[in-house]
Amino acid sequence: MSDPVNKKDAKGQTMWGGRFSAQPGALMQAINVCIQYDKRLANQDIQGSKAHAAMLAAQGIITEDDYKAIDAGLDEIKIEIQEGKFPFKDELEDIHLNIENRLKEKIGEAAGRLHTGRSRNDQVATDFRLWVRNHLNLFDAQLTDLMAALLGQAEANTDTIMPGFTHLQSAQPVTFGHHMLAYLEMFARDRARFKDCYKRVNESPLGAAALAGTPYPIDREATANALGFARPMANSLDAVSARDFALEALSAATICATHLSRLAEEMVIWTSAQFQFIALSDAFTTGSSIMPQKRNPDAAELVRAKVGRIMGALTTLTLVMKGLPLAYSKDMQEDKEPVFDAFDALEVGLAAMTGMISDMTPNKPRLAEAAGAAFSTATDLADWLVMSLNMPFRDAHHVTGRVVAMAEKQDKTLDALSLSDLQSVEPRITDDIFRVLSPLASASSRTSYGGTAPSEVAKQVARWKAELG
Amino acid sequence: MSDPVNKKDAKGQTMWGGRFSAQPGALMQAINVCIQYDKRLANQDIQGSKAHAAMLAAQGIITEDDYKAIDAGLDEIKIEIQEGKFPFKDELEDIHLNIENRLKEKIGEAAGRLHTGRSRNDQVATDFRLWVRNHLNLFDAQLTDLMAALLGQAEANTDTIMPGFTHLQSAQPVTFGHHMLAYLEMFARDRARFKDCYKRVNESPLGAAALAGTPYPIDREATANALGFARPMANSLDAVSARDFALEALSAATICATHLSRLAEEMVIWTSAQFQFIALSDAFTTGSSIMPQKRNPDAAELVRAKVGRIMGALTTLTLVMKGLPLAYSKDMQEDKEPVFDAFDALEVGLAAMTGMISDMTPNKPRLAEAAGAAFSTATDLADWLVMSLNMPFRDAHHVTGRVVAMAEKQDKTLDALSLSDLQSVEPRITDDIFRVLSPLASASSRTSYGGTAPSEVAKQVARWKAELG
Amino acid sequence: MSDPVNKKDAKGQTMWGGRFSAQPGALMQAINVCIQYDKRLANQDIQGSKAHAAMLAAQGIITEDDYKAIDAGLDEIKIEIQEGKFPFKDELEDIHLNIENRLKEKIGEAAGRLHTGRSRNDQVATDFRLWVRNHLNLFDAQLTDLMAALLGQAEANTDTIMPGFTHLQSAQPVTFGHHMLAYLEMFARDRARFKDCYKRVNESPLGAAALAGTPYPIDREATANALGFARPMANSLDAVSARDFALEALSAATICATHLSRLAEEMVIWTSAQFQFIALSDAFTTGSSIMPQKRNPDAAELVRAKVGRIMGALTTLTLVMKGLPLAYSKDMQEDKEPVFDAFDALEVGLAAMTGMISDMTPNKPRLAEAAGAAFSTATDLADWLVMSLNMPFRDAHHVTGRVVAMAEKQDKTLDALSLSDLQSVEPRITDDIFRVLSPLASASSRTSYGGTAPSEVAKQVARWKAELG
Amino acid sequence: MSDPVNKKDAKGQTMWGGRFSAQPGALMQAINVCIQYDKRLANQDIQGSKAHAAMLAAQGIITEDDYKAIDAGLDEIKIEIQEGKFPFKDELEDIHLNIENRLKEKIGEAAGRLHTGRSRNDQVATDFRLWVRNHLNLFDAQLTDLMAALLGQAEANTDTIMPGFTHLQSAQPVTFGHHMLAYLEMFARDRARFKDCYKRVNESPLGAAALAGTPYPIDREATANALGFARPMANSLDAVSARDFALEALSAATICATHLSRLAEEMVIWTSAQFQFIALSDAFTTGSSIMPQKRNPDAAELVRAKVGRIMGALTTLTLVMKGLPLAYSKDMQEDKEPVFDAFDALEVGLAAMTGMISDMTPNKPRLAEAAGAAFSTATDLADWLVMSLNMPFRDAHHVTGRVVAMAEKQDKTLDALSLSDLQSVEPRITDDIFRVLSPLASASSRTSYGGTAPSEVAKQVARWKAELG
Repeated sequence: MSDPVNKKDAKGQTMWGGRFSAQPGALMQAINVCIQYDKRLANQDIQGSKAHAAMLAAQGIITEDDYKAIDAGLDEIKIEIQEGKFPFKDELEDIHLNIENRLKEKIGEAAGRLHTGRSRNDQVATDFRLWVRNHLNLFDAQLTDLMAALLGQAEANTDTIMPGFTHLQSAQPVTFGHHMLAYLEMFARDRARFKDCYKRVNESPLGAAALAGTPYPIDREATANALGFARPMANSLDAVSARDFALEALSAATICATHLSRLAEEMVIWTSAQFQFIALSDAFTTGSSIMPQKRNPDAAELVRAKVGRIMGALTTLTLVMKGLPLAYSKDMQEDKEPVFDAFDALEVGLAAMTGMISDMTPNKPRLAEAAGAAFSTATDLADWLVMSLNMPFRDAHHVTGRVVAMAEKQDKTLDALSLSDLQSVEPRITDDIFRVLSPLASASSRTSYGGTAPSEVAKQVARWKAELG
Repeated sequence: MSDPVNKKDAKGQTMWGGRFSAQPGALMQAINVCIQYDKRLANQDIQGSKAHAAMLAAQGIITEDDYKAIDAGLDEIKIEIQEGKFPFKDELEDIHLNIENRLKEKIGEAAGRLHTGRSRNDQVATDFRLWVRNHLNLFDAQLTDLMAALLGQAEANTDTIMPGFTHLQSAQPVTFGHHMLAYLEMFARDRARFKDCYKRVNESPLGAAALAGTPYPIDREATANALGFARPMANSLDAVSARDFALEALSAATICATHLSRLAEEMVIWTSAQFQFIALSDAFTTGSSIMPQKRNPDAAELVRAKVGRIMGALTTLTLVMKGLPLAYSKDMQEDKEPVFDAFDALEVGLAAMTGMISDMTPNKPRLAEAAGAAFSTATDLADWLVMSLNMPFRDAHHVTGRVVAMAEKQDKTLDALSLSDLQSVEPRITDDIFRVLSPLASASSRTSYGGTAPSEVAKQVARWKAELG
Repeated sequence: MSDPVNKKDAKGQTMWGGRFSAQPGALMQAINVCIQYDKRLANQDIQGSKAHAAMLAAQGIITEDDYKAIDAGLDEIKIEIQEGKFPFKDELEDIHLNIENRLKEKIGEAAGRLHTGRSRNDQVATDFRLWVRNHLNLFDAQLTDLMAALLGQAEANTDTIMPGFTHLQSAQPVTFGHHMLAYLEMFARDRARFKDCYKRVNESPLGAAALAGTPYPIDREATANALGFARPMANSLDAVSARDFALEALSAATICATHLSRLAEEMVIWTSAQFQFIALSDAFTTGSSIMPQKRNPDAAELVRAKVGRIMGALTTLTLVMKGLPLAYSKDMQEDKEPVFDAFDALEVGLAAMTGMISDMTPNKPRLAEAAGAAFSTATDLADWLVMSLNMPFRDAHHVTGRVVAMAEKQDKTLDALSLSDLQSVEPRITDDIFRVLSPLASASSRTSYGGTAPSEVAKQVARWKAELG
Repeated sequence: MSDPVNKKDAKGQTMWGGRFSAQPGALMQAINVCIQYDKRLANQDIQGSKAHAAMLAAQGIITEDDYKAIDAGLDEIKIEIQEGKFPFKDELEDIHLNIENRLKEKIGEAAGRLHTGRSRNDQVATDFRLWVRNHLNLFDAQLTDLMAALLGQAEANTDTIMPGFTHLQSAQPVTFGHHMLAYLEMFARDRARFKDCYKRVNESPLGAAALAGTPYPIDREATANALGFARPMANSLDAVSARDFALEALSAATICATHLSRLAEEMVIWTSAQFQFIALSDAFTTGSSIMPQKRNPDAAELVRAKVGRIMGALTTLTLVMKGLPLAYSKDMQEDKEPVFDAFDALEVGLAAMTGMISDMTPNKPRLAEAAGAAFSTATDLADWLVMSLNMPFRDAHHVTGRVVAMAEKQDKTLDALSLSDLQSVEPRITDDIFRVLSPLASASSRTSYGGTAPSEVAKQVARWKAELG
């Protein structure tokens, strides 16, 4: 891509149009050529062609000899591609024509018969679904790894106390393990979304031909089976024109990326000098040669940003598909690049996050100190008054307010007040109160299902260990 | 909402800030008040509160008397709201405080005990999930209706011939029924997406309290069951901070809206004077008093546009959630309006499309004429030569080209050529050729699974009739 | 809007379609009625009609008597609307028909002649442009207020030292005033964008009629002038079908909202207990009755979220306009609500931010302490070595590294090291070094144009004071 | 990019993580390396460095000898890059380090002094602004070309009659020239938007250094001048952290792309067999070897789709920038690819559209026939009755309705009715009526400013010819 140069060099208008103005042929080629990016479908294209050829032979549509030549030729081509020896040609526009043409070079006329009973429309839909399907499997595996990393941190920190935040203000003490499990739950739903999406991706368009099906006695069940698809799609127009499978995959990726962005944001904040809640290993930070304490959370920041590209891709494809009549329009050539780009971004994001979670070290003293600040157990005090003394809420809040004021005056945390101090405000208070006044006590008291108590966190850890195996 | 008036009237800066500048109190109220729109959660809020109160009583956390008072009070409030008599107050900010305050007016102090073991954070998450869940059910029913309407048209038109388009150019003859079924398949996947989304919506955050769970001995299984949720959410931080359920619902709605936009676009094009492929009933068009043939497809155009608002809402909520730390930030107050707006749009869009599909009349003569134009069966001729004469593809294409040229010269469609004409190009052609040369013959020959042949369309119609019941 | 109720109550399919299924008439009304929101155009509609009527009379197209009746009637209607007495009717669909009909009730047949030489297409385009124009003026004034607030903080804090961050890690000391001015520059560009947008909004579509102009001898210059437009639009098709003015306004609003989101994010982080860089007044925070130190930055969080709605609106309108043929399609009825919603959001966001900036108090000791941490002046030391000793960069970095290591070992900031300590690493160091080693010294040394030195900040403050008047 | 392979081949989890799992180093490199795409900034980077070096020498910060070595070295590198001989290295991550390192290979230590008084933060901002600026110039030139092409069609078709559409239904006759000019107006505004954007792009961040400015006595005016920037940016924090210039450029590109999409949509519809309003040349269509009449408007469809990628890029960058604290975060590395991708898309789209407009041939007979259909001059008849007979509107509509009914019954267009026929409905009708009843007469009567009358179109053509030169 040669970019325009500075206007100052310009002698006039022609220079700007340089790339395209002279020859519409060059422009149409620029418009039509997609081999630069759709070569990523090469494996899928060969896979699909092999299945199609085998079916054509089984149905007697092509001869066994032709089939053998086609199949062997495709295998050779596959190897050429793997070894970087395949002669990609721009003038052949796309991956399908490149491979078809190469096959003809290798086996002659028989190559042409491979295209019997299919067209580029169902072929590209098949390739694209196979490619997306592979990535859904990849994300499933990556999410499992990420969940395992989060589970590891959760297990190691079932009773590591930290502040639970609302509005980035300390609200109630929670456990670090509990916080990790919150993200584990989110990524588990992301994984479930990809699985559900898989069902709709995993249907075979092959044999829909240009748009109307074909008069050849093809066996679409056979090619679907051979390619691992659950079934052939039941309507040929739909088979070639649908891209909701890609939109759904991009949607699931976008949602997953919002979760990554939330966790990444917390990591950026947590590694600030002001928070110091965690330390990331050198593997995921960059430093400064002369500022040894500076450790930039570059990886976390890049992960945070990835939701941009992924949502951008979803926006792109939604705009492309809006209002498109059936069955195929050239607009749909714009479907693959956004998906490639978004999925690469998610792959990197998941890998980086998994690495960071595995490596990170919570700063326990710092977390504990922060958890105790800001009278974070005031609500526990109020709850104790209600539960233990059967005090009405309003009165309990009043008493709590006075206790907090006393603590503030003495510059102490609530659990550092003496019993007599507490009794000076409310004589019925007993030393049972200290069961809830420290951050750990506070957290430990929240034993409702899914609560932050270490005992509850341990149960959830056990549940997930069983599930993740 | 009083909008700013014309600059010309301005005497200075104060006028612009008029609404807000004087009193930050007014501004904060404008920022915080959401009762104008979250009153739509009123039923859900009462439903949730009744379930919570019943559980509190069953667990002995509140007395039976308190429970009875709370439950009866909530029932009264529900009726007040239904009858439009509920005194909504802006100064009480949201639906939760409005109802809570009203309950206090009715039953006094006991009202306060309703809030034991929950907080506004889990309460609003519960209400919102219940509301979204109801709409997923609505969309399921609406999509079923739309699919039934499409199925009706498909059944009535299994052998109505029309042009199959690529690039809005006639490519191959298809059947109108086949075209209808293509959309039926899309909407069926949309319905499946909503069903899958339902699983992730249908979990109970109730009892997660502010973020950490609660020390009260609540029974989250019980409230989950009472509200029809499949289970309580397993992590309290996740329960109050997750909004992926809403993002997923918006994603599914966006995809569905792209399908609506494609069908709506076709209807707009099809009703143009140039196409005249279908007629819409007066119920869904607007006319001109003095141009009797003008029938504007207003409803179709509005349906086409709805993908804008729905994708807009998805963009909104994704931006809101990007990078939000756990567990609750005020940003999340911006979660409901986009969902309300998008779901209203989808509801109207589905209803309008169902009505239009039910009412529309395909213009069979016009469709048939268009299907036969542009030598649309040329590929059928070539296929016949290959299949019947075992002619190599290249030769078949050569022969076809010569036949088409002859037809063009004679200004005839292919099936209007005489056998002797055809044989003058290729002597081996027999009158079996006419089995494929007419548009209906062409379509009928495409009997591959999911193909456009009337026989295949009839099979799919039967399959869907069985499925939709 | 009555929402669907719980599925459990359902007896079958009809309940879901309840709102629409029975009567397509009700549905078409729901689709077409926009009076609920386009009533916000009432003032603009009357303003446009008055200008049009005056022109019609001046051109002799209507009589003077008719004009007087029309003009007086419109004035009455304006008052009715202002006083909340106007009888809005859903069955009249939009604001134009509501006013036109009311005018007929008031003055009879003459009302009909008001519509001579215009149509609803140019009328709504005119109204909408007037409304957007008013808001561009509003945003100009609001941005000026916000800039003034930032300038106030900058002036008060030209030498308040704080850490300059990269990656949320302390990088180099800067001044608080400098930081404020960075945002002032951004909002100044936002204001310039709105001004540029204004030029393209401020053209009159009135008189384009339905799409083709009119045979009546209207004077479009006259109505353009009367309405304060710079000129009549030069192409009638363009006049009724263009919405790029709204897209541009939404784009400028989106960019402005990203700036607000960045500043709001900083405020949320800065008010955390861990940072404590600033304090917001009670007017823009919400507290907790029993946790006195908790001060939730609700307003900042809501401002941060607003970019969601605004970008969502831009997405909506872009999708709506994509691929729309000229000149008018019903899709375009979806143009106003997103703009209304986005502009309300920006108005609130700007007002809230201005209030918060005016009210906020930087915590100077805390900022200074943070500015000195992390050896933040290490680069200053290296620069001093290069500039004062003419030391090669590489050597300067080596020396700096050794000095920092010494400081770390002694647990001191760099400016707390003794000269002899420094000279033990590099003997040529003189006490001139202390001119740059403290955070204030470091900042003060950065006197390049636009740099953070208090002297430079003061110059920029002076420049802006002159500009903002 | 090696994609994951089929799940069936998997032996376990390691294969999925293959690309990244083993070595976080590889992952961090994948995250940090951007040389694959930011090499497009090579020219800008050299341009910026030359200007910076010259200034450093002029200020006496580096020696004249060092300057000469640096300048000559950079010139050599520029040639190496142009000739494709530059040894790009991934391990050097970005274009800046690649060039800096190469310079060191060429000239040794002096290379290091080039970086005095700047940092990568201001350097990349400078490069990026220069690159965007070049493209704004390119778009200005391309839009001028496109406007000239539209003007050519307008001039050739000032009186070519066609139907003016609302709702894709014929509404009133217009001229083809008028329709072309509508788009010319839109693209003129797009050009103006790019020009306005240029003002905000064209400011120099160079010398802002990392974020705070520099203690070196640099001359930012000098480098700004040398690079053709209007001025140095006035705040160093803003200079390195602002990306609103890119957001604004993407916004303007998005709006321009919506205009392209509208015109492209019309071209797709107009080339359909049902419309046949225009013919595109072979240069911009693709055909079918055996269906000679099929001419797929591929280029138009791809142009229509481009709004997707461009809006997608805007979405991406908005999400990336949302909520980013000052001054630099790694997230911002995601700023360039979306801009590169979007601008390439716009460049191709503008070039293709210009080619298509230049080449297209309006089908005048077909357009004229369509313009006369559907009683498209009924409103002209009504207007004539009002203007010539001073008939009240209501009566005029009544008469028109009866005339149209008569024409419908006789299966004639309105201008084909006889005068006596017309007088049988309304005796006062004279043969002056035929002045407006034909489509051409109807269009010719709409002489209001900006109207569709050929006389008005000719005036606008003349105005634009003068303007475009």
